[in-house]
Amino acid sequence: TANKRLLVLPGDGIGPEVMREVRRVIDWMDRRRHVSFALEEGLVGGAALEATGSPCPDETVERALATDAVLFGSVGGPKWDSLPFEKRPELGILRLRKELGLFANLRPAVVLDPLVDASSLKPDVVRGLDLMIVRETTGGIYFGEPRGVETMPNGKRRGIDTEVYTEDEIARVARVAFDLARKRSNRLTSVEKANVMQSGRLWRAVVSEVGKNEFPDVELSHMYADNCAMQLANRPKQFDVILAGNLFGDVLSDLAAALTGSLGMLPSATLGAPDSSGRRNALYEPIHGSAPDIAGKGIANPCAQMLSLAMLLRWSFGMEEDAKMIETAVEKVLAGGLRTADIMGPGTARVGTSVMGDAVLREL
Amino acid sequence: TANKRLLVLPGDGIGPEVMREVRRVIDWMDRRRHVSFALEEGLVGGAALEATGSPCPDETVERALATDAVLFGSVGGPKWDSLPFEKRPELGILRLRKELGLFANLRPAVVLDPLVDASSLKPDVVRGLDLMIVRETTGGIYFGEPRGVETMPNGKRRGIDTEVYTEDEIARVARVAFDLARKRSNRLTSVEKANVMQSGRLWRAVVSEVGKNEFPDVELSHMYADNCAMQLANRPKQFDVILAGNLFGDVLSDLAAALTGSLGMLPSATLGAPDSSGRRNALYEPIHGSAPDIAGKGIANPCAQMLSLAMLLRWSFGMEEDAKMIETAVEKVLAGGLRTADIMGPGTARVGTSVMGDAVLREL
Ligand SMILES: CC(C)[C@H](C(=O)O)[C@@H](O)C(=O)O
Ligand SMILES: CC(C)[C@H](C(=O)O)[C@@H](O)C(=O)O
Repeated sequence: TANKRLLVLPGDGIGPEVMREVRRVIDWMDRRRHVSFALEEGLVGGAALEATGSPCPDETVERALATDAVLFGSVGGPKWDSLPFEKRPELGILRLRKELGLFANLRPAVVLDPLVDASSLKPDVVRGLDLMIVRETTGGIYFGEPRGVETMPNGKRRGIDTEVYTEDEIARVARVAFDLARKRSNRLTSVEKANVMQSGRLWRAVVSEVGKNEFPDVELSHMYADNCAMQLANRPKQFDVILAGNLFGDVLSDLAAALTGSLGMLPSATLGAPDSSGRRNALYEPIHGSAPDIAGKGIANPCAQMLSLAMLLRWSFGMEEDAKMIETAVEKVLAGGLRTADIMGPGTARVGTSVMGDAVLREL
Repeated sequence: TANKRLLVLPGDGIGPEVMREVRRVIDWMDRRRHVSFALEEGLVGGAALEATGSPCPDETVERALATDAVLFGSVGGPKWDSLPFEKRPELGILRLRKELGLFANLRPAVVLDPLVDASSLKPDVVRGLDLMIVRETTGGIYFGEPRGVETMPNGKRRGIDTEVYTEDEIARVARVAFDLARKRSNRLTSVEKANVMQSGRLWRAVVSEVGKNEFPDVELSHMYADNCAMQLANRPKQFDVILAGNLFGDVLSDLAAALTGSLGMLPSATLGAPDSSGRRNALYEPIHGSAPDIAGKGIANPCAQMLSLAMLLRWSFGMEEDAKMIETAVEKVLAGGLRTADIMGPGTARVGTSVMGDAVLREL
């Protein structure tokens, strides 16, 4: 019987086409590895907006709450760019994070050896790069109230957002980051602007307390966000695990991803709190966007979506071995010289989405 | 008679020693170019804290308001890192920005030909890079109310900051950026998170309005801050002028600076609004910090501080020719192969702060 429930949300742009390759991997697992998945597909983003009038319909939220893990594609496109706030495809992912309580976004930035040259940085600066950003994703300025654009008595407009973090919100995401650091090289860098922001001051204090009381073995350091951006650009390998709030995490994790030069390769996981049985809501998605400019052309890189499935297997089902199989298969395909357009380099062969998928399946 | 009043605030760390080289340049101008400066020196940062109990004494603010231009060094150091908010050296610069109404921070990121190899990016990616970030510096989350760390009824702490921008605040800094774009390549990229933040939504709307009504000839584009960080890392040369609010501007301008690999070379200007006579408050400072680790060793790079003087001559006194003379002198010294430790490369000669100063004076 199908004991592992999975909700697939392909979304917009290249989402559906890269998801197709992932479904082939899931089929293969069903057949060869005797893991049976109960797969459902749902609507999100622009696709959901067109079909239902909402970028994140209640039905999608309900099904996401009922499933074991969500595999998310990507959302957005020029078609919907001028819509008002409540209609934007991005609301799809924002609402899912909030309603599923997905507070910890894990964003690896890894440079695989065959892809060192894809980076805009010098090979020596990025070779072997392997860092993980833990970004808080249900709090901070993304959701704080009051927020809005109002008209003042003098008739002029004013835009307001509120950055707010409670100590519990900070502590729980800090624990995820400390835990991860323990499994890696035992070093954690926590990032804020404690020299300017009050929430940053509390952030620094709480992370220090959690470290001292619960993870005294992990080496903790603090860094201002502006300095962290500099350090990432100049010496990214100094980092192992980086912890940041929602807004800084957004910018810094995209920066870290860009340093690798291979956005099409990078997956992410966003996790909720485990319940007493250890089950947690979780969503997995590539870090690249919907890439409307290349959608439908069959040239998108399916690797990030496949590696998102690997993260899903690892984090939601504890299937470390199967996760590694997928990761190794992808690495072997790259080592063999196949490349999608986004990661092309001299001496490699350019292939499309489905040939890349074929190759990964062959390695599996 | 001394018609040009200048307030020099060396501050902490390497501030005083790089300022010493700049004063030699000023002396030279006095003697050779017959421009007479009335120079005063004041206290700021940790130095002011030790002497007066405040990192930005009222007297410094008053003298800054009365002068024609402020030449600022750098503030901060480990000694003062654990002090409470109101005592931090950083308050020196924050209070000056606020009280002098210095709302437009101009941060060039330039890669001079002799320094291409100092960058962590591939030479082709940064060769010829020359962009300017215009950062708003008296508004946004740096100053918005309410702000603070409070204890909630349940006994837990909560940290709050408020990001707030009025349309007038956005429009006036946008005008500075549009103006600059006109003097350069006529392209402006405005950065926010309009997809998530309400202040970002207003930011985008107001910048678009100013563009349409007052600068229809300037090519305006909008970019999300996370994407901008990516694009800066991957293809920085696509940008000419970038406009951003206080917080994103902080992170992105440091990132842009880091891409050049030569922080010790980069100056900045922070400008207030011109009055009816065209006079404006203005402060000039290197973008590097106080570098406490190398302070007092005589090895700091004085170029950023010297180039800050060049910006001062250009922006506060309209002395374009003299500004260019300093810039050219610095470039020639670098082309000649002299380097301070921070920008050392193969085949160059390492020198200290004062030898670098000597060399620039010789070129002048
Ligand atoms: C789509 C957008 C709302 C989102 C964010 O800002 O969080 C994206 O940039 C991300 O990082 O997942
Ligand atoms: C010192 C600090 C308060 C300041 C800031 O965040 O604005 C600095 O990083 C800068 O960019 O000038």
